[in-house]
Amino acid sequence: MRATVLVRPKAGILDPQGEAVESSLRQLGFLVDEARVGRVIELAFDGRDNARRELERMCEQLLANPLIESYEIEVDGA
Amino acid sequence: MRATVLVRPKAGILDPQGEAVESSLRQLGFLVDEARVGRVIELAFDGRDNARRELERMCEQLLANPLIESYEIEVDGA
Repeated sequence: MRATVLVRPKAGILDPQGEAVESSLRQLGFLVDEARVGRVIELAFDGRDNARRELERMCEQLLANPLIESYEIEVDGA
Repeated sequence: MRATVLVRPKAGILDPQGEAVESSLRQLGFLVDEARVGRVIELAFDGRDNARRELERMCEQLLANPLIESYEIEVDGA
């Protein structure tokens, strides 16, 4: 079973990596208002019946820091 | 205009961050076969007519390393 997890900095939380990307894009001449950088994690795993619940537990225990990051889980059909 | 860019390590390219996530998830008891870690970049920008072409240029010039990473562009409707 395959899944994609998107982890993003929550709104209002400082994102230094995003600020660096934003400023570099501007220096290259792109008209960027804002950039935010997060992580995309692709997983192949044995999910059995409750894949989504397993993925939520992975996010809460390791993949995301719930204080400052939000996560989005997409379970692939296959 | 808003867009999301997903940058992932290409297949076959070593991904130490993914390996670390994989091994940590296993240590926590999850039955993970593989984990790959990339970046998600959310952009607000002035895209005018050719937003996708602009985003491709951003990816090629800054956001992705085309030798080892692939990118996927999603332009949001709004």
